[in-house]
Amino acid sequence: MKKLINKPEDVVFEALGGVALAHADLVRVHFNPNYVVRADAPIQGKVGVISGGGSGHEPMHGGFVGKGMLDAACPGAVFTSPTPDQMYEATKAVSGGAGVLHIVKNYTGDVLNFEMAAEMAQAEGIEVTSVVIDDDVAVQDSLYTAGRRGVGTTVLAEKICGAGAEQGRSLKAVTELCQKVNGWGRSMGMALTSCTVPHAGKPTFDLPEDQMEIGIGIHGEPGRVRMPLKSADEITEMLAMPIINDLPFKRGDQVIAMVNGMGGTPAIELYIIYRKLAEILSGSGVAIARRLVGNYITSLEMQGCSITLLKADDDLLNLWDAPVNTPALHW
Amino acid sequence: MKKLINKPEDVVFEALGGVALAHADLVRVHFNPNYVVRADAPIQGKVGVISGGGSGHEPMHGGFVGKGMLDAACPGAVFTSPTPDQMYEATKAVSGGAGVLHIVKNYTGDVLNFEMAAEMAQAEGIEVTSVVIDDDVAVQDSLYTAGRRGVGTTVLAEKICGAGAEQGRSLKAVTELCQKVNGWGRSMGMALTSCTVPHAGKPTFDLPEDQMEIGIGIHGEPGRVRMPLKSADEITEMLAMPIINDLPFKRGDQVIAMVNGMGGTPAIELYIIYRKLAEILSGSGVAIARRLVGNYITSLEMQGCSITLLKADDDLLNLWDAPVNTPALHW
Repeated sequence: MKKLINKPEDVVFEALGGVALAHADLVRVHFNPNYVVRADAPIQGKVGVISGGGSGHEPMHGGFVGKGMLDAACPGAVFTSPTPDQMYEATKAVSGGAGVLHIVKNYTGDVLNFEMAAEMAQAEGIEVTSVVIDDDVAVQDSLYTAGRRGVGTTVLAEKICGAGAEQGRSLKAVTELCQKVNGWGRSMGMALTSCTVPHAGKPTFDLPEDQMEIGIGIHGEPGRVRMPLKSADEITEMLAMPIINDLPFKRGDQVIAMVNGMGGTPAIELYIIYRKLAEILSGSGVAIARRLVGNYITSLEMQGCSITLLKADDDLLNLWDAPVNTPALHW
Repeated sequence: MKKLINKPEDVVFEALGGVALAHADLVRVHFNPNYVVRADAPIQGKVGVISGGGSGHEPMHGGFVGKGMLDAACPGAVFTSPTPDQMYEATKAVSGGAGVLHIVKNYTGDVLNFEMAAEMAQAEGIEVTSVVIDDDVAVQDSLYTAGRRGVGTTVLAEKICGAGAEQGRSLKAVTELCQKVNGWGRSMGMALTSCTVPHAGKPTFDLPEDQMEIGIGIHGEPGRVRMPLKSADEITEMLAMPIINDLPFKRGDQVIAMVNGMGGTPAIELYIIYRKLAEILSGSGVAIARRLVGNYITSLEMQGCSITLLKADDDLLNLWDAPVNTPALHW
């Protein structure tokens, strides 16, 4: 295992230490329990927006904490759900009296622990709602999931709901916004290589030199099919068409599109994917209104990519365009 | 070779196509010869700032074209110098009557071709100056270099000189600014793994599973030493101390610090490096006034990192803080 780490058990603690030192103008890091929180939290009268999950998907979620996006993020151990007390303490830390939304990726541990945290916070009089993101069209159930997995749409939901909360929308309105984003967002990913969890010390799975995995999960969970490596254009089609056909995205729709790197893929390759995606969507009569190309929801050093499409109306686009100031996303 | 590409010979053309589609609000891409140029170029009365070099180091340089940074970037084939006609055409495209600065990384091909392009532009009455960046403390001469290689300081020079030009400074002033940044900037990098140039189809070098290379070049050129893999803290020291001792950076100095990923390294590992770097600098009495942590000057999918320190006075910090709006850097 080749990694820039000290002891595997210290990876998350030390990385959070680096985040705290690098981004003290934007966020504070609380240790034991671990969470990353906006430097100016809690904001009175504003709905708090929280997410979290296993570490190893950076910049998600800690890199998305700041004005116009998340109020707090709860990082678990690598590829491991955070604990209820992390989520509970983070919820209290961002509670400004207007309630708190939990944005939860659909993995069994995340869902259960966020539920428990919500109950604990509600017992103290904090109103909490939850929206489970389940946008991955690749497989119906999965290794850690009942139902579809939560992947790239989470990033877009965090941006849009964060903007809605910043505008002063109510907990009910921000929650409905999140449900709408989840309903209109679809994703699928693929891998060229595995990744190695520091604690495990060896690759999560083996993928022969001439093979790729289509429909991979962000923890290296099995996807739809292994097959010989194809061209970037063919891979883009294999990801885009199931996404387009699932919602389905229709002629005349406009979308926010994300071409996401899994962590170990050069930017030059992501732009080749984006080029083909733009051609496919253009041919389908779907307009790309906004886009992200880069590493947003990763799987450590995995090589591969995912595509996310979110159908967008004027409200979603206005919220997308609203200012955001976080370590990983700012405009 | 596992890459998200179509034909190796089309990689740069197709990636530039993706950039053109994704960032049409910020840049235009000119093909044959290839260059990326600000959408609003040329800007009358403003000094033009250009850079360029082989592709495969993204986001450098094309990702840094836009308001407050580069006016144009010339991408060569992967790890191959751009041609004089690319630089010449880009120079003409950004010339607004106040002259054009070429920021050139110190590699023999880049230096020669930029010189030729400058002569061609000067013959047409465009005033051109050049600053060669040679900030890599690892080795004195190298595979493609007489003298030190140009690496991470280039990113900082592009930001700072772009800001200076945006402020309306003269060609002489922006050129002196670039010389000052090069004089005050120092870098060193390391690799855990090789990268694979698409045309070559196989790794540039072999590095055994238990070895790392300290002082690596951004094209995989040999560094100072190969040795057994060490901890992140030890690696940070091995990079930081030669940098600190070279300028030398002294107690009381303030710096802009960059912890840069080589392309295949997860963000979580870069923050572990940053944490230790902050500790080392704090112990040396050097204050980190500003910082970047992420992928800025990469080597395709190479795993590894580099550290850049730039001594900064108030002028450099003000220029650093000035607005920038490019695909890869914006605030």
